[in-house]
Amino acid sequence: MNPFARKRADSVAFLGETALLAAIRRWLGDAAPDAPFGMGDDCAVLPRGRAARLVTVDPVIYRRHFDDKVAARDVGAKLLKRNLSDIAAMGGRPIGAVLALTLDPRTRLDWLEGFYRGLAACARRHGVPIIGGDIAEAPDTVAASLTLLGQPSGSRVLTRQGAALHDWIFVTGRLGHSLDSGHHFKFTPRLAEGAWLARQREVRSMIDVSDGLAKDLKSLTPTGLHPSIDARNIPLRGKADIAAALSDGEDYELLFTMAAKTDPAAFARKWRQAFPKIKLSCLGRFEPAGSHDENSLRMECYHGFEHLH
Amino acid sequence: MNPFARKRADSVAFLGETALLAAIRRWLGDAAPDAPFGMGDDCAVLPRGRAARLVTVDPVIYRRHFDDKVAARDVGAKLLKRNLSDIAAMGGRPIGAVLALTLDPRTRLDWLEGFYRGLAACARRHGVPIIGGDIAEAPDTVAASLTLLGQPSGSRVLTRQGAALHDWIFVTGRLGHSLDSGHHFKFTPRLAEGAWLARQREVRSMIDVSDGLAKDLKSLTPTGLHPSIDARNIPLRGKADIAAALSDGEDYELLFTMAAKTDPAAFARKWRQAFPKIKLSCLGRFEPAGSHDENSLRMECYHGFEHLH
Repeated sequence: MNPFARKRADSVAFLGETALLAAIRRWLGDAAPDAPFGMGDDCAVLPRGRAARLVTVDPVIYRRHFDDKVAARDVGAKLLKRNLSDIAAMGGRPIGAVLALTLDPRTRLDWLEGFYRGLAACARRHGVPIIGGDIAEAPDTVAASLTLLGQPSGSRVLTRQGAALHDWIFVTGRLGHSLDSGHHFKFTPRLAEGAWLARQREVRSMIDVSDGLAKDLKSLTPTGLHPSIDARNIPLRGKADIAAALSDGEDYELLFTMAAKTDPAAFARKWRQAFPKIKLSCLGRFEPAGSHDENSLRMECYHGFEHLH
Repeated sequence: MNPFARKRADSVAFLGETALLAAIRRWLGDAAPDAPFGMGDDCAVLPRGRAARLVTVDPVIYRRHFDDKVAARDVGAKLLKRNLSDIAAMGGRPIGAVLALTLDPRTRLDWLEGFYRGLAACARRHGVPIIGGDIAEAPDTVAASLTLLGQPSGSRVLTRQGAALHDWIFVTGRLGHSLDSGHHFKFTPRLAEGAWLARQREVRSMIDVSDGLAKDLKSLTPTGLHPSIDARNIPLRGKADIAAALSDGEDYELLFTMAAKTDPAAFARKWRQAFPKIKLSCLGRFEPAGSHDENSLRMECYHGFEHLH
């Protein structure tokens, strides 16, 4: 749906601020608690036991992240899910979100309703209260930036740091063709998997695959090492080829590393017991930079998604 | 400064994402800690003792909140300060911020440097680490949304709820002509004052004046009451008149209420000892709706800033 109304009566400007805020509360329903624990004061206040230690922020922007072919509900859900994927990648659990919206006054009310209802449905499914936000005006713009707060789900947070020589490299699910296949709207953030991985002591570091395996794997690679990956081990989505799997991005799968001394087959068995329906692939391991197995991919020849290029 | 470059060599697109992120770290300097407590991972991680319970979000948008006449440094500082004012209005203290930036690829590097240096200087002054963020592209846009995290500064958070019949209404500083006078860029958020007020048991509720006294006072007014305000008590900024003081907004002063049984003169003396340089005005008190003193302002005839109108 095109987010801009032709008739003023269909637009947010027609409603005005006060009525619009009331409508947003209605659309969010029980996904939005009242002040002070939610909307309606200068700040949202989290209950004592739910203080936030994890913070991430990601936007969706009209003509950049979605177009007229996408349902507004899917835009709202994706905005939350891409942030949930970041919390999953730390092994965390979400505790609340705030939403900064920027709208042209011509924005259609039914577009905005769909957006909020999609966001609310996703928020309820994952137990994430929408605790506050802001609405600002800007011409020709429909953009939303969501800040997601979380907590570690156990005693440990998994960061991008921690891999070492010969450590194993794993990825969940399948990679590539996320845009063509609609996966970037349909995916389920790997929250349960991320929390489980943070509890396995042999797992050393983790990231979610959002900019493409080639780029995101660099973030896990310690200085002086390179990832030795056998192309045959890369799990492909649908008709994706290796180049697509390495470069497309928006897979929202978990990429993680495991201590060299661990048996990858034993780890895979443990995984299958916990997540029988989720594919897990061992891609390879870290080797000294400069060494080159002829079966391993030349990762330096592939690039992920480069912003502002 | 106009934020868009004429020559590609002056733009963020020329630098590319990786070099731009390195430049941003340089501009922020020690205002931005490293991952996991700051930029560079899927989420920022707050240290155990610094978990966040207060959350607020506010943007600055080109052509809406600033134009070519404003220095980029002032835009960055204002973005943080308007959020700090929300934390002050709860009696809180800030503990960290994340920044979602949306940029046209033509955005001038020197504009962006000024913006970040202004933000960083303000962040250092108030002890607020910039712990994460996101950069996205959108044509013809320069917009930034900052989410500020905080903690209660003492045992209590002050919300907008809590006033009762005959309670006193106070405001700090002066009101009106914020845009004309440049106050909306020059103001100092009332963090120390807000924290002090939250410690005074007789103070019942609080808000910061951002949309104009007429509108923001409504948020403190309990159902069935109305604020009885003597116009002579309203502290005017410079050449502002009463209408400007009620409607202009962007004052970033603290508006609060105090229990009816308290002596306002005694409270004013206590205030002067704590903040000898900051003006405090008692505007009036809450009376039953319908009752009307002929000296009191007809607040319903004034409107504050209405968004999306």
